[in-house]
Amino acid sequence: MKQRIIKVAQITNEKWLNLFKVQYINSKNNVCNWIFASRKKSPLKENKPDAVVLVVTIDTPEGRKLVVTKEYRVTINDYEYGFPAGLIDPGMTIEETVEKELKEETGLDLVRIIGKSNNVISSAGLSDESVVMVFVEASGEISTEHQEDTEDIETFLYDIDDIHKLLASDKKVGAKGWGILYYFATIGKI
Amino acid sequence: MKQRIIKVAQITNEKWLNLFKVQYINSKNNVCNWIFASRKKSPLKENKPDAVVLVVTIDTPEGRKLVVTKEYRVTINDYEYGFPAGLIDPGMTIEETVEKELKEETGLDLVRIIGKSNNVISSAGLSDESVVMVFVEASGEISTEHQEDTEDIETFLYDIDDIHKLLASDKKVGAKGWGILYYFATIGKI
Repeated sequence: MKQRIIKVAQITNEKWLNLFKVQYINSKNNVCNWIFASRKKSPLKENKPDAVVLVVTIDTPEGRKLVVTKEYRVTINDYEYGFPAGLIDPGMTIEETVEKELKEETGLDLVRIIGKSNNVISSAGLSDESVVMVFVEASGEISTEHQEDTEDIETFLYDIDDIHKLLASDKKVGAKGWGILYYFATIGKI
Repeated sequence: MKQRIIKVAQITNEKWLNLFKVQYINSKNNVCNWIFASRKKSPLKENKPDAVVLVVTIDTPEGRKLVVTKEYRVTINDYEYGFPAGLIDPGMTIEETVEKELKEETGLDLVRIIGKSNNVISSAGLSDESVVMVFVEASGEISTEHQEDTEDIETFLYDIDDIHKLLASDKKVGAKGWGILYYFATIGKI
C-alpha cells in the first residue's frame, strides 16, 4: 500500500465518541488531512468490531418472522427501524454480546447463531466504526423488561407484508438493516 | 412522541465534521445527554440526506455485472470495498449527484435510474448521517481520469463468483454495500 499515516491527533476528550485528525500521505504522494469520529481510545491501532447487528428470525404459529426494532434515536430525533444491535463491551465475545443484546433489547432467547459477516464498516468517510452482522434464530416472547434505562426500543415480528410496507413508507431505516430488509422483500420470503 | 430535545451544542469547529452534544428528555421523562458527529451546520433542524450510494449494474458481453469500488479510506488505513457514493452538494438534486458521482468515481455513464430508497441512516448511535440508495443502470468504460485529487478509487465489474469471493474474504466491506452484496450472493444472480 502506497498510502501512509503520518500522525493521528485526538481533538476532543469525550467519554463515548471523539473526533480525531489524521494526517497521511495519499497514493499520489500528497500530504492530506482527514477528520473522523471514533469510539476507540486508539483508532488506527485497534481493529476490533465495535458492535454486533442481529438479523433475527423466529418461528411462530403464523410462520417465520423477522425481528424488527423501532428505537428512538436522539441523533435524528425520530424513531429508527432496524435490527437489535449493541456495542461489544471489553472482554466480551461476539457470541456473548449477541445473547446479551438479544435478551436486553427484545426479551428473546438465542436458539443458535446461523452465520456472521466479517467486519463491515458503518460509514468509512466519517468514522472507523465497524460491526459484525450476525444471523440468529431466536425463541421466546417479546418483552421490554430487560432494557437498560436509556434504551427505548419496541420490538416487532414482521412478515413479508410488514417488510414491504416499511420499505414503502417514509419511516427511517438503519443502513445495516436496509439491505437485509430489501433482500427479504425482493425474494418474497423470510 | 414523548421524547423532546432541550439543547444542542456544537463542541468542535471543524470544516467537514463536528461533534455535537444534545440534551433531551427521554420517554421515561429523564434528562439524558448524547454526543454525536454531524456534517450538518444545524443538525436536528435539517432533514436532508447527506449522500447517495449507487447500486450500479451494467450489461457486458459476458453478462450483467455489478459495479464494485475499492477505495482507500484513511479512517481504517485500508481499502474498503463498496459502491460508488458521494455527498450531495448544496443546490444539487439526487439525480444530478448520481450522474456526477458515477462519472467521477468510475468513468461510467448513467443510462437510467431504476429506483431509490428513502433516507437510510448510516449509524444512528454516532451520527445523523443519512444516505439514499439509488439503483442505476450504466454504460461506457471504466476510467479513473475524472476522479478528484483526493480520491483513490479502483472500479471493478463483479459477477456472482466475484461477489461470493469478496464476502468470503477478510476484505473490508462498507455497510451500505454489504446487504446488497449479500442479496445478490444469496439469490445467485445480478
